[in-house]
Amino acid sequence: MIITLTTDYGTRDAYAGVLKGVILGLAPKVTVVDITHDIEPHNVRHGAFVLRQIWPWYPPGTIHVAVVDPGVGTERRILLGQYAGQFVIATDNGLLTFLHRDFPTESAHVIEDRRFFSPSVSSTFHGRDIMAPVAAHLANGAKPREFGRLADHLELLPVAHRAEIHGDALLGAVLYVDGFGTLVTNIRQEQLAAPRVHEREWQVTVNEIPLGALRSNYSEVSRGEALALLGSSGHLEIAVNQGRAVERFGPWDSVRVEVR
Amino acid sequence: MIITLTTDYGTRDAYAGVLKGVILGLAPKVTVVDITHDIEPHNVRHGAFVLRQIWPWYPPGTIHVAVVDPGVGTERRILLGQYAGQFVIATDNGLLTFLHRDFPTESAHVIEDRRFFSPSVSSTFHGRDIMAPVAAHLANGAKPREFGRLADHLELLPVAHRAEIHGDALLGAVLYVDGFGTLVTNIRQEQLAAPRVHEREWQVTVNEIPLGALRSNYSEVSRGEALALLGSSGHLEIAVNQGRAVERFGPWDSVRVEVR
Amino acid sequence: MIITLTTDYGTRDAYAGVLKGVILGLAPKVTVVDITHDIEPHNVRHGAFVLRQIWPWYPPGTIHVAVVDPGVGTERRILLGQYAGQFVIATDNGLLTFLHRDFPTESAHVIEDRRFFSPSVSSTFHGRDIMAPVAAHLANGAKPREFGRLADHLELLPVAHRAEIHGDALLGAVLYVDGFGTLVTNIRQEQLAAPRVHEREWQVTVNEIPLGALRSNYSEVSRGEALALLGSSGHLEIAVNQGRAVERFGPWDSVRVEVR
Repeated sequence: MIITLTTDYGTRDAYAGVLKGVILGLAPKVTVVDITHDIEPHNVRHGAFVLRQIWPWYPPGTIHVAVVDPGVGTERRILLGQYAGQFVIATDNGLLTFLHRDFPTESAHVIEDRRFFSPSVSSTFHGRDIMAPVAAHLANGAKPREFGRLADHLELLPVAHRAEIHGDALLGAVLYVDGFGTLVTNIRQEQLAAPRVHEREWQVTVNEIPLGALRSNYSEVSRGEALALLGSSGHLEIAVNQGRAVERFGPWDSVRVEVR
Repeated sequence: MIITLTTDYGTRDAYAGVLKGVILGLAPKVTVVDITHDIEPHNVRHGAFVLRQIWPWYPPGTIHVAVVDPGVGTERRILLGQYAGQFVIATDNGLLTFLHRDFPTESAHVIEDRRFFSPSVSSTFHGRDIMAPVAAHLANGAKPREFGRLADHLELLPVAHRAEIHGDALLGAVLYVDGFGTLVTNIRQEQLAAPRVHEREWQVTVNEIPLGALRSNYSEVSRGEALALLGSSGHLEIAVNQGRAVERFGPWDSVRVEVR
Repeated sequence: MIITLTTDYGTRDAYAGVLKGVILGLAPKVTVVDITHDIEPHNVRHGAFVLRQIWPWYPPGTIHVAVVDPGVGTERRILLGQYAGQFVIATDNGLLTFLHRDFPTESAHVIEDRRFFSPSVSSTFHGRDIMAPVAAHLANGAKPREFGRLADHLELLPVAHRAEIHGDALLGAVLYVDGFGTLVTNIRQEQLAAPRVHEREWQVTVNEIPLGALRSNYSEVSRGEALALLGSSGHLEIAVNQGRAVERFGPWDSVRVEVR
């Protein structure tokens, strides 16, 4: 049984190590996997996207713990969601947005039964006191419905999840900037509705600057040159060969990408 | 059996990876857990505090390896300590300070029997050549007393471990600055001697600037505003909602906190 | 069975987490070990050196996955090498340079049988689609020859792997700068051809600045002073006690070290 951790705790403090101790103390046979503890602090969108990216690659039954929690200690809820045979324990603040958009929800429960919490729950470290022990109890065989009532809704980030279609063009926005400075857009491979052999028929414009045809590889352009390609995530990405696209095209949330 | 690693090796070099190889080579069934390799280089206090923070959350028998070792290769000793049913292998340079103050010492041995070391011991990488193999042999069943004689003392950092009591006030200092810039003080929850429902009766002053009552949650103040609260560690903490208290209140070692 | 990961993916994105999911999905009993995901982006030399450093410390049968791949999606090959009883899966771009120089090659195959790849191979994430599944299949018992034909050559970085001997002097260059700013040179312990008790007979000069005798420990010089010593890697290293040698001696690739 695998429990993964995606947090904004950073790696210089004890927080991530404490989570692993709580889990291994309650569920010694679990394999704990660090996805990252370097989500930008309080950046729910960042965490939501990473969670979505890892999802297709973990085996059924995997339990993912995600903590990006600017509202810790307020009345925001903690959810146990089930998508495509895997589980996620996350605060109800938008962290499930991309999972929810891309996979059918199999179940979603509000985590509220204190039997599964640490005996003493702090007001500032729910990862330790609620989410880690709940993950361990789930790994040990507790059923989702034991943790609380069904959730009747969940918070979603206001993101344009898919590019808009305008006539024969797609108008896209940036969902995520990766660590290489590459802009991951909301233009999906399936929206391009062309078999990959015809990729080159699409012409891409970023902020009204033409980038030419969709490429299939970084190496098709010179070092330092910008390009558009279908990234490994299945999204159209704007990159610079061995450089950082985000520095070329300005603030990610005002970048406009057009494909026609 | 769990072996945890807390070091200042950083993550861009091979050092941390080498430690894990040595341990898994000698004790293949062990679960190796990275606490952090991002202790500030040579900052013994930082390592000591992280070690203290993770301690209550690991199961009995866990072996913790801690390497923050500005004096590597000098005559400083390496210790095997036992506190609350867990073990720690650390240089004798103050790394055990907070463990030692907060838990009764069950045993402390000087690690000196070269049978448990790597065949060749370098002068600059005792983590690899002494501490990792000792941890593995301990996990494999060696007894603490086999590693060397009882330690007759250990080095402690000169820290004011608990706030001073002056009449009806507590005068505190900062023990640790976490990665969010929050100031963790030496004012302990139990020193406040009030049940949590009465927390608000305490008034907090930092560097003679009043912060008002002790809060129970970040969200009780506006974004960017400073507050004092009982942190998840059981210490009074000075934080800024979604900001960095250390930048507001100046060098951590001159911050003075008063609660009355 | 151990699979280690050495990449330049960084830790803020999903890439490293995806690799672990692919491996654990196919080979659930494997122990996955993060060596580092902080290889400087596209710095093949950095990755090659880290790989060499960890090698002697892992048990036979360990499988190392190394991804530093500026040419992803081009015709560069992916290799499965066997050195000293361990395996490495790496792009054929120089990543194996130091392994190849220091250990006899037991076998080297080109990875080309798509049976072992993900069903759909992207053009930009071969770590996920080729290298991780190949590592898992190897851990599950596939034989090296099943993955492809024998490699008839491999790419090597043009590095001066060992210091030049000029009369009674050794002229060395820097192979690697570690995270502490220490310069690891190509002067090998065995080239000094002296038992360690005589180390002090060697005099070291860096960029024509005399550093005095070879030391055996940082603490033999004052804080902030430069020194030369035999590092834990078996190479002569130029360090500054509690400081950064790389800032003292300028660009690493123009540093000249002489020992006589």
